Amino acid sequence: MENTVNAAAAAATATSNGSASVDKGVDFANYFCTYAFLYHQKDMLTDRVRMDAYYSSVFNNKQHFLGKTVLDVGTGSGILAIWSAQAGAKKVYAVEATKMAEHARELVRANNLQDVVEVIEGSIEDITLPEKVDVIISEWMGYFLLRESMFDSVICARDRWLKPTGVMYPSHARMWLAPIRSDIADQKMNEYEGCMDEWNGFVRETKSSYGVDMSVLTKPFSEEQKKYYLQTSLWNNLVPNQVVGTAAILKEIDCLTVTVDDILKVEASISSTISKEDTWLCGFGGWFDVHFKGRMENPAECEVELTTAPSIEDGTHWGQQVFLLNPPICVNEGDEFRVNFSMSRSEANHRLMNVDLGYEMKLRSGKTLPTVQNKFYIE
Amino acid sequence: MENTVNAAAAAATATSNGSASVDKGVDFANYFCTYAFLYHQKDMLTDRVRMDAYYSSVFNNKQHFLGKTVLDVGTGSGILAIWSAQAGAKKVYAVEATKMAEHARELVRANNLQDVVEVIEGSIEDITLPEKVDVIISEWMGYFLLRESMFDSVICARDRWLKPTGVMYPSHARMWLAPIRSDIADQKMNEYEGCMDEWNGFVRETKSSYGVDMSVLTKPFSEEQKKYYLQTSLWNNLVPNQVVGTAAILKEIDCLTVTVDDILKVEASISSTISKEDTWLCGFGGWFDVHFKGRMENPAECEVELTTAPSIEDGTHWGQQVFLLNPPICVNEGDEFRVNFSMSRSEANHRLMNVDLGYEMKLRSGKTLPTVQNKFYIE
Repeated sequence: MENTVNAAAAAATATSNGSASVDKGVDFANYFCTYAFLYHQKDMLTDRVRMDAYYSSVFNNKQHFLGKTVLDVGTGSGILAIWSAQAGAKKVYAVEATKMAEHARELVRANNLQDVVEVIEGSIEDITLPEKVDVIISEWMGYFLLRESMFDSVICARDRWLKPTGVMYPSHARMWLAPIRSDIADQKMNEYEGCMDEWNGFVRETKSSYGVDMSVLTKPFSEEQKKYYLQTSLWNNLVPNQVVGTAAILKEIDCLTVTVDDILKVEASISSTISKEDTWLCGFGGWFDVHFKGRMENPAECEVELTTAPSIEDGTHWGQQVFLLNPPICVNEGDEFRVNFSMSRSEANHRLMNVDLGYEMKLRSGKTLPTVQNKFYIE
Repeated sequence: MENTVNAAAAAATATSNGSASVDKGVDFANYFCTYAFLYHQKDMLTDRVRMDAYYSSVFNNKQHFLGKTVLDVGTGSGILAIWSAQAGAKKVYAVEATKMAEHARELVRANNLQDVVEVIEGSIEDITLPEKVDVIISEWMGYFLLRESMFDSVICARDRWLKPTGVMYPSHARMWLAPIRSDIADQKMNEYEGCMDEWNGFVRETKSSYGVDMSVLTKPFSEEQKKYYLQTSLWNNLVPNQVVGTAAILKEIDCLTVTVDDILKVEASISSTISKEDTWLCGFGGWFDVHFKGRMENPAECEVELTTAPSIEDGTHWGQQVFLLNPPICVNEGDEFRVNFSMSRSEANHRLMNVDLGYEMKLRSGKTLPTVQNKFYIE
């Protein structure tokens, strides 16, 4: 025996309302532990789109921070807490579940902010603050916004610790979907087929050399590999001309009012019109943006947007999530898609997502093609 | 945020006697889950050295199986249980902790052995058999033999279910260590240095663009990266001429009598003589072999060896574990090493290992160089 990878598959128990009762040890082993590496923190700290957006949102809206109390949920290395203090906050609580808290504490001290920033090691759900805060700042976004389900913790923090007049940083979030083309569809299909060829050779060999007929496992093996190569969404940094039709909003979130129930499931029915002549539709790309607008009674002086949309120069570490269609479809300008999109949490691990994506195509000739239903996994 | 990898770091609690009380959910998430993939089973089933050794051990020693009862610990796809039945066993209990048990059951049926092989899904520690068995067969070996600590489960099975006259398959195991040369030492050092250069650029950039001095984290980052690049043992398929001195046995195990206490820690003091003139000692390579000899009162008719030693043609999926020395040392034929080796289980995850490796070098000129102490991690 030897397990060559430590794949993660948490054992959370789904409860009747669709949320999950989570084993804390398992969750730490599968999820939090990665944030305890400085290498991983550096990945996020060198994402310029991410850094510039948060930096601008804080330093161009100092009125939200000057003399105020701030809570940073999941502070990691402590960067957002430090900026909040540099922007004039009176007190910043920086909460971090992993041992990274120790490094955050060192960093705060090295930047001489130990009188303002208090680093607290613990889960936001478990810790207690001595007061309510004026601002909650957090970088909680996962792939395609909701992977990781970390926003649950921000909502919990908001409901427990934000003053009734408080401001959320970011204040709004949106999920997007658009039809795309990409060579990766063919590539993944080739990889899948290569893998099945190898399997078939293995079945022959095991029968002839070792007297055991493995062919009964061909179907489950093929399903396992299909899931891996074709049904698992892919991280990709798309460029704008790979988007072959109109992008549509799947979900809008007001961070001040949204509840966990509101984000357990994302369901949307959207339309998209193909904008390129004679091209291949290889799948759909999903991304998100967040906005820093303050709140209606206390708006930002300078609104800031952080977008992870396809871009020529400004790729992010989030990239986009690509859901492949196999085989690709030849499409033309004016063809219309109706997409029924549904995303819910994996029963085995509440931080991962299952997606049902059905589409119906109405050709510009007027002809309608039958509905196709696809299942994807965001792992 | 976005965690790009699901690194595994289990939260087991070390107890005073050096063994560990293990959180089952965490252990499943970090360890067992990988064995639930057919892709991973195929990796093991296509390792010809592994397959040929077990196949020969069973079919060349049919007297141990004919009309007997057999227990296969961690049956996976069920191959060893099926061979045992094909060799004439009256009854085979095939125990598997993961959902792979379902595939094993299908495979047994497809090979028409459902009247002999009973697949039981569960941990060997939890299940109950209706009788004691004549043979325990298991492929329990991890990297460098003991990684995964799966042999604990085999020992538990033996103590509970093997008849006093029963036979273990395999019956014996050994761990080996030898001085080696490899380009990988320079390569890893280059990777480490490249990583630190990047970090230093990042520190400058974060100060100038974002007003935060990160330099206090340079030392912990460097330690994290050193651990990753230089102190984590490497999987490698070495060839014999990369072994530059005599190989020595670190540990010998009699599978019939060994206890869990005997394998919690491996401590050995060994000697090795360099056998090549003017070469580089880049580190030490560790591997194992196991033997199928039956037992003294009931020996194998045909003894079989499964070795994972460096080989030109017969690489295994286990390969060897390489512990790098940085920098490499120029050595000559006749130089002698005294190595103090100590391997124990990681406190955070009892299936991973920590290694302390100290060596002292006595040149053929008679001069003795001071002892050097190294720490490694088998992850």
